[in-house]
Amino acid sequence: MSTGRMEAFSDGVIAILITVMVLELPTPHGTTWAALHESLPVLLTYVLSFVYLGIYWNNHHHMLQATDRVNGLILWANLHLLFWLSLIPFTTAWLGENHLATTPAAAYGIVLLADALAYYALQTAIIRDQGEGSLLATAVGRDRKGKVSPLMYVLGIGLAFVSPWLAIAVYVVMALVWLVPDRRLERTIAARSGPPGAPGAPTGGVSP
Amino acid sequence: MSTGRMEAFSDGVIAILITVMVLELPTPHGTTWAALHESLPVLLTYVLSFVYLGIYWNNHHHMLQATDRVNGLILWANLHLLFWLSLIPFTTAWLGENHLATTPAAAYGIVLLADALAYYALQTAIIRDQGEGSLLATAVGRDRKGKVSPLMYVLGIGLAFVSPWLAIAVYVVMALVWLVPDRRLERTIAARSGPPGAPGAPTGGVSP
Amino acid sequence: MSTGRMEAFSDGVIAILITVMVLELPTPHGTTWAALHESLPVLLTYVLSFVYLGIYWNNHHHMLQATDRVNGLILWANLHLLFWLSLIPFTTAWLGENHLATTPAAAYGIVLLADALAYYALQTAIIRDQGEGSLLATAVGRDRKGKVSPLMYVLGIGLAFVSPWLAIAVYVVMALVWLVPDRRLERTIAARSGPPGAPGAPTGGVSP
Amino acid sequence: MSTGRMEAFSDGVIAILITVMVLELPTPHGTTWAALHESLPVLLTYVLSFVYLGIYWNNHHHMLQATDRVNGLILWANLHLLFWLSLIPFTTAWLGENHLATTPAAAYGIVLLADALAYYALQTAIIRDQGEGSLLATAVGRDRKGKVSPLMYVLGIGLAFVSPWLAIAVYVVMALVWLVPDRRLERTIAARSGPPGAPGAPTGGVSP
Repeated sequence: MSTGRMEAFSDGVIAILITVMVLELPTPHGTTWAALHESLPVLLTYVLSFVYLGIYWNNHHHMLQATDRVNGLILWANLHLLFWLSLIPFTTAWLGENHLATTPAAAYGIVLLADALAYYALQTAIIRDQGEGSLLATAVGRDRKGKVSPLMYVLGIGLAFVSPWLAIAVYVVMALVWLVPDRRLERTIAARSGPPGAPGAPTGGVSP
Repeated sequence: MSTGRMEAFSDGVIAILITVMVLELPTPHGTTWAALHESLPVLLTYVLSFVYLGIYWNNHHHMLQATDRVNGLILWANLHLLFWLSLIPFTTAWLGENHLATTPAAAYGIVLLADALAYYALQTAIIRDQGEGSLLATAVGRDRKGKVSPLMYVLGIGLAFVSPWLAIAVYVVMALVWLVPDRRLERTIAARSGPPGAPGAPTGGVSP
Repeated sequence: MSTGRMEAFSDGVIAILITVMVLELPTPHGTTWAALHESLPVLLTYVLSFVYLGIYWNNHHHMLQATDRVNGLILWANLHLLFWLSLIPFTTAWLGENHLATTPAAAYGIVLLADALAYYALQTAIIRDQGEGSLLATAVGRDRKGKVSPLMYVLGIGLAFVSPWLAIAVYVVMALVWLVPDRRLERTIAARSGPPGAPGAPTGGVSP
Repeated sequence: MSTGRMEAFSDGVIAILITVMVLELPTPHGTTWAALHESLPVLLTYVLSFVYLGIYWNNHHHMLQATDRVNGLILWANLHLLFWLSLIPFTTAWLGENHLATTPAAAYGIVLLADALAYYALQTAIIRDQGEGSLLATAVGRDRKGKVSPLMYVLGIGLAFVSPWLAIAVYVVMALVWLVPDRRLERTIAARSGPPGAPGAPTGGVSP
């Protein structure tokens, strides 16, 4: 079974998730900049969630480029990841509409944590199917970034009870960590898979 | 006429259905875990519907992999299936927002029943076009699972009038039955279509 | 310029339109069958609009199978069609929520009329580019169905001011007319384009 | 890394954006033409935004046809463009629901400005990767249209504080400027890339 339709379906779901959040941005009440200012927490939460979904799409894209077939377990691991990603708009709305309160900030982190674990599970299912010597297994390597991330989300969830702002700071830092591509990995894979610019060179598709 | 665009369109519709349900999850009133707790019936109904749509996408994917052409009747049988699937978000919202009351639980089952029948009709239309000796006809076989399912949904609809929880238990059990892949079928087809891992081996794409 | 991405984009837009209407189905107030009964006009309008969008997707699919390249004008004629199709959910909601009143019934017909004219314009733009001897030009022929349809929608709009039900009856009849495939055309094209079952044989992709 | 999946994802997001705006069209209150007349500002803003998103899709399509590979920077420049495009429904709703007031008209222009700059950034990232002698670099040329557009949006934003109608007039004029294809460019590229009608000839895919 090839990866084509699973990629297309995942693209569809992530494209919809990243877009429907804009439907939940409440139209500002009034026609002044002050009215827009009140929408600011919602807008900033939207930006953060947009970046996270972009990171997941980007990494998912890379991971599947290093994958050449799927099985039933991988299909369900992928749907499981999409399920947790689909809760991002829900926690985004809750966090944004409540001006970044404690419980919504923790709930936002719990969904990020579940996303990271679901991504890790999908990656593990693919590596098990492809074999330990496969391109993906080599690219992921010891996957320190993927293993540290869940701990950071747990830290963020805990900090939400001290101050929601601290939790959000942790989520923002983790987004930045994942935005910066992992150059060393890219070079390793490029070296292995042929001349620079060769297709199929993942840039470190590991779990955020 | 090839199956490509029909697959792409179906993927699009199912991806949207599985995603837009999250737009109907009402943002919790308040910022406490208790507020989230009130959203629990909605969230659990969402999980159940997500799983059902995932099963349909998965089986649809498999069925079309064993199909090499479509005709006008198949196109309309497919749109007919998509129509009934599109009512899942509607009954999901009704069931979730009313804390799992009797009539919504029955209506939810009626839509599941219509989905199963529409899937069966699509399968029948494809087999008629492909011939009784086709890969799909062999894979489906006597299709006991596909024939028992509608009876179970009828049972669920009836039980809703005794207790909505019994109806939901039936729907959950049926989802689990369909989640577990049908290993025997997979082996039969794999044996027939060549070496293990050969593309095009459906894992029992029969109607849920 | 090939038709691939224009097809994919149109599929995306039509898939979303056919699906988002379900978001506008208001959840019934209450948990009785009577509550569902009140939603009936909305549900029936939804069915009608679903069928119309299905017909457009189907015919669009066929028309583009007989098309091998696009230019700037065709791209904009296609976006123009998608614009008018995108108003179907708007008039559907207006008609459904007002229990099939006069003005909404006329507005619904106006959008159907604009859809038919936009489809006709797209077809004309493609035939002009492909040439009068092209497969599409032959398949469409004198296109009586495509030319009579707008007149019927005008009739429906007029009848809305007598009784909305008469208007809706006209729209339903036109949907049925377009649902039934045009066998004669299919045979003509099949005969011309090779043995039966040859790909690329449109079934009369003319404007609804 | 090929452009395929990035194109598909962008198509998905733009198709959703162009479509979900229709969900934000409020159903008219009442069943008279006067009720529809009140929805007119919303409808007209919708038309303008539909045209802008259509222009972006069209130009994006052309630009990627002249692109043969993507890298991590291009992926993020593309997501950055999609982010700003995703705010169009937000400012569309704000502008439409407030009968074209000053601040919303300026905000609408700010998002258009950000879209134009994000498109320019994506174009620059692609040209840097493809080289100055590439097809895209030649097609874009000195890109006067792309460089003047941001200035016009700035003018529009300024004029919003004189009269929102002047701002909207500027946005409409810019949409018309971009709708009319740039014939000279088309000819240049067609001449260079082979006989007329050769695939891959962009019609001036420069930033709106």
